[in-house]
Amino acid sequence: MPVNLNAPNPKHIYAVAGVKLGFAKAHIKKWQRNDVMLMQLAPNSRVAGVFTQNAFAAAPVQICREHLSAGKAIKALIINAGNANCGTGEQGLQAAKKVCAAVAALFNCEAENILPFSTGVILEHLPVDKIVSALPDAVNSLSDIAWCEAAQAIMTTDTIHKANSTRFQLNKHTITITGIAKGVGMLQPNMATMLAYLACDATVEPLALQTLVKSVADASFNRVTIDGDTSTNDSFVLIATGQSNSPEITLNTPEYKALYAALLSVAQPLAQAIARDGEGATKLITINIEHAKNDDEAHRCGKFIAHSPLVKTAFFASDPNLGRLIMAVGNAIPDLNTNNCSIFLDDVCVVKDGQRFIDYTEAQGAAIMAKSEISVTVQLGRGTAHTTVWTCDYSYDYVKINAEYRT
Amino acid sequence: MPVNLNAPNPKHIYAVAGVKLGFAKAHIKKWQRNDVMLMQLAPNSRVAGVFTQNAFAAAPVQICREHLSAGKAIKALIINAGNANCGTGEQGLQAAKKVCAAVAALFNCEAENILPFSTGVILEHLPVDKIVSALPDAVNSLSDIAWCEAAQAIMTTDTIHKANSTRFQLNKHTITITGIAKGVGMLQPNMATMLAYLACDATVEPLALQTLVKSVADASFNRVTIDGDTSTNDSFVLIATGQSNSPEITLNTPEYKALYAALLSVAQPLAQAIARDGEGATKLITINIEHAKNDDEAHRCGKFIAHSPLVKTAFFASDPNLGRLIMAVGNAIPDLNTNNCSIFLDDVCVVKDGQRFIDYTEAQGAAIMAKSEISVTVQLGRGTAHTTVWTCDYSYDYVKINAEYRT
Repeated sequence: MPVNLNAPNPKHIYAVAGVKLGFAKAHIKKWQRNDVMLMQLAPNSRVAGVFTQNAFAAAPVQICREHLSAGKAIKALIINAGNANCGTGEQGLQAAKKVCAAVAALFNCEAENILPFSTGVILEHLPVDKIVSALPDAVNSLSDIAWCEAAQAIMTTDTIHKANSTRFQLNKHTITITGIAKGVGMLQPNMATMLAYLACDATVEPLALQTLVKSVADASFNRVTIDGDTSTNDSFVLIATGQSNSPEITLNTPEYKALYAALLSVAQPLAQAIARDGEGATKLITINIEHAKNDDEAHRCGKFIAHSPLVKTAFFASDPNLGRLIMAVGNAIPDLNTNNCSIFLDDVCVVKDGQRFIDYTEAQGAAIMAKSEISVTVQLGRGTAHTTVWTCDYSYDYVKINAEYRT
Repeated sequence: MPVNLNAPNPKHIYAVAGVKLGFAKAHIKKWQRNDVMLMQLAPNSRVAGVFTQNAFAAAPVQICREHLSAGKAIKALIINAGNANCGTGEQGLQAAKKVCAAVAALFNCEAENILPFSTGVILEHLPVDKIVSALPDAVNSLSDIAWCEAAQAIMTTDTIHKANSTRFQLNKHTITITGIAKGVGMLQPNMATMLAYLACDATVEPLALQTLVKSVADASFNRVTIDGDTSTNDSFVLIATGQSNSPEITLNTPEYKALYAALLSVAQPLAQAIARDGEGATKLITINIEHAKNDDEAHRCGKFIAHSPLVKTAFFASDPNLGRLIMAVGNAIPDLNTNNCSIFLDDVCVVKDGQRFIDYTEAQGAAIMAKSEISVTVQLGRGTAHTTVWTCDYSYDYVKINAEYRT
């Protein structure tokens, strides 16, 4: 069961002018649901992406990088769930290209105008024929309001589809932003999340768009972690269709900052939704690191806490076994002067000056640990950098889901 | 249930001349068992140790470092289970010193001649009075054959006590080595393991002893990992009593090499025993990394595989979901040329030249995954360095044990 996460209300997920979505059943696994999603973009749309830093980057990730760096217009995205097309060598690259070519044929363009994405089991060959056979259904279902159905089609072990949307005024133009994401396990995004797509109808200069996709990822999807494993298929794509007819947005302008803030307002709840729906999650844990020497140190400390199986099982048990927090902090920063370190659970001080706070009681800890949303704040006493990381606990169901994933 | 691990036969655990062991019940937790262990050393014994690199090093670790660096003779070791005396500040340091002083009073020496060790819950104050009250019982029970009882007294969530022993001839002298260890969770030793003690009756020059303790740790306990969490109390101590009257062993001599090999023959099975008895373990997994650029890279790659919750749950499920192996390798070495990478499960090639080996079948993988002891061999194609890491799988019981640890 995800933590305080409901399906998005389709009424609150706005169409983005210039984006149409379709879906179909390719039957890649035994699922009785859509597993292929097609996104068609209006002419002149601009697209930027960030991708996994895993050396075993999947074939579609390699093709995306190739097609984006070629600089040609991107006219459509094709996504399948159930097979990652990773560890599949030259055959895998050819498979991804065949899917792109099949989409291109339907849209009268070239394979290089298409971006392919896959998510699912690694080390198995992509069933190209199944996907190609499903494409006509996907094209027939194209509509500009199908964001929620699109979010459902890219799910793997997600229990709820994830979509979010906002509208804001930018110099008398109404800009709409809508995004979808999938998450669950093998999730410590390194440059990007599993799969996430944000589209807006603003006009954005290419360099500004590339900067935005990286900045938004760093402040949202890159701050979520489920199990510390970085997927081979992580991709986050930002699309600007330009259909709002707003003036072109360039770097470091007030308009750029307004767009960044609006994108983040869509992306951060999506990132949190991934943590809420982490495999087997029963609790959402927000980890704030303060007074760090620099951003890297803050991030490292947050991730060490978020990745510790002992911390995560203690949260699952609602057991204020908070010694495990200091263990994780001490591992993250071996040269920490622990005398300057304080730790809070929600607003209760647990550790002060490196030791158990004299006023802290087990009853206080137990009361907070019983909640479904808990924050941990670590003050390192080393500087002014800070960050926030979202994660979830480890339950029996995490083991169950991942032990039975392929069945 | 530990993996193919039986209690040591006391007949095969030899006394080491110059070492006496005692134990007692201090009732630190609700256990009805010994939880305090006392080790008395003959005069002129030499002692060296390596300790956790966690910044939140426990009070006893700080005191051990202080007493060892003071260079005074070590006359006894005092160990308690059930409370780690960590995150306890100045009060914790005073508590450890009081325990040392109480032991010293019984042996007519000074507190600086004693080494203290603690293992158990972090962030709770040490019940000094309970431990001091138990010391007379521990002294009364001192004997040179109580190694197995000593190993039992230092257990926490271990299901079986761990002891190992060997004898070998060194220039007409018989040298005896006996060791004990405890392990289980919060276990990715960084310089040393949770708690391990090896004693021999050879005479070893101090610098040689210090070099030996580090080398033996690196080739044994530092190659075990359960969950990637490094404890605040990790300690590995090597004792040379000199009671065999063999000539003093110095660095880089044939005798040094013979002693190193013999120590390793005791330490490596103890390290493996820790992995076999990892919390909730159902499988022992031996990870061989070959053709790495250097030792650090080999170690990093082995640890990334060993720490991946997704790899570990796949092993628990006996599911040859081997794509998770390439995910872990690709995360460990982002600049890996995957085309040169091969992976074997036992002797079956799964990945060749970076992709699923054409002859590999699911049936082959399933047959190996059903075994209780499995090896993974990764050939990186980057150099000549290699290492071996031992770990276990993640089961429901890992979550259960760690969710209920303090109850």
